[in-house]
Amino acid sequence: MGANGDGDPVDTQEAIMQATYRALCTHGYSSLTMQSIADEFDKTKGVIHYHYDTKQDLLVAFLEYLLDAFERDIAVDEQQDPGTRLEALIETLLFGPPERGEFDHWELTTAMLEIRSEAPHNPEFRRQLSHNYETVEAMVIAIVEDGIEQGVFRDVDAEEVATLLLTTINGARIYQVTLQRDDVAELTSASLEGIVRHWLRQPGGVGE
Amino acid sequence: MGANGDGDPVDTQEAIMQATYRALCTHGYSSLTMQSIADEFDKTKGVIHYHYDTKQDLLVAFLEYLLDAFERDIAVDEQQDPGTRLEALIETLLFGPPERGEFDHWELTTAMLEIRSEAPHNPEFRRQLSHNYETVEAMVIAIVEDGIEQGVFRDVDAEEVATLLLTTINGARIYQVTLQRDDVAELTSASLEGIVRHWLRQPGGVGE
Repeated sequence: MGANGDGDPVDTQEAIMQATYRALCTHGYSSLTMQSIADEFDKTKGVIHYHYDTKQDLLVAFLEYLLDAFERDIAVDEQQDPGTRLEALIETLLFGPPERGEFDHWELTTAMLEIRSEAPHNPEFRRQLSHNYETVEAMVIAIVEDGIEQGVFRDVDAEEVATLLLTTINGARIYQVTLQRDDVAELTSASLEGIVRHWLRQPGGVGE
Repeated sequence: MGANGDGDPVDTQEAIMQATYRALCTHGYSSLTMQSIADEFDKTKGVIHYHYDTKQDLLVAFLEYLLDAFERDIAVDEQQDPGTRLEALIETLLFGPPERGEFDHWELTTAMLEIRSEAPHNPEFRRQLSHNYETVEAMVIAIVEDGIEQGVFRDVDAEEVATLLLTTINGARIYQVTLQRDDVAELTSASLEGIVRHWLRQPGGVGE
């Protein structure tokens, strides 16, 4: 919350971001216009243009806003053992944070997919998505290396494990929303749990 | 090739599909118009409209065309042992067919991603993508069940394995094109190979 209430630029930008989210969920990316965003916003379209010169500028800020919320949502309790931390991270990435986040998880997945599909043509989207990928990848690698060091995980290639988890979870979320199959994330969770328990964990180790 | 050369409706439709592919790769989905497709086509725009009433009709036919090509490309040699068949299928799905298919694999992945991102709003795209998913899923399940029956794979849940492979490969291809990281598919291939060899294959079985 800003210091001076209604006119605070931070509050205004937050309201523009929320209006963009609603417009994106309602219209889809390919029909998203500055006007459709303004229709979801309780001030004038001029206020949006004051903050963002172009739709492109607004969407770059919006992607950053979504990814910041995502990174807050996936923070893990570093006190827990590596196996539990890894399983908690997998569940949060697949199904959203245990305490409901700011957005509906599947609505957010759909919005992110539409922005992601523009990334091959948009270097700024790509830069942000790469930063996000590397952040999550580093989290997984740290947990896996911790597990290897503590002797609870086998001596695997941590980068390979991170890539496997990230690609699987990304693919599962995308299939779930594009096929409207509500079993893909559940089945993926079951297979990843099997892999963590029976392949990654050291036989006879903690939690086996 | 049609029976009567230049004017054959099958040839014309094939030419329209190829023009659509070129226009999609050049402009991206969100800027794709009937005019941009006509610009890639060597007959008049009227010929396109004669075959397809709307852009939507054309794109539905185009998605079917891409998925038919995809299903031809992933056919596997049923004479080989299940482990080899599964590894060959994974490689083809990740990197494209060994004998180069009709399309560049990563260009095709980008085009498919853009169409896929519309699927939450488009029941006809969803229907076709679901059919495609189920076709590949059934192929993997048949190979895994065959492997279990022959005693070369452990007694795993074939549907869970199929979901894991499909989601991982889909996620890897999408990261590869949206992050323009050329190592994601390679790292995914290495982790999936590890999982097939060390987790799926029966200890002491063929190929161990």
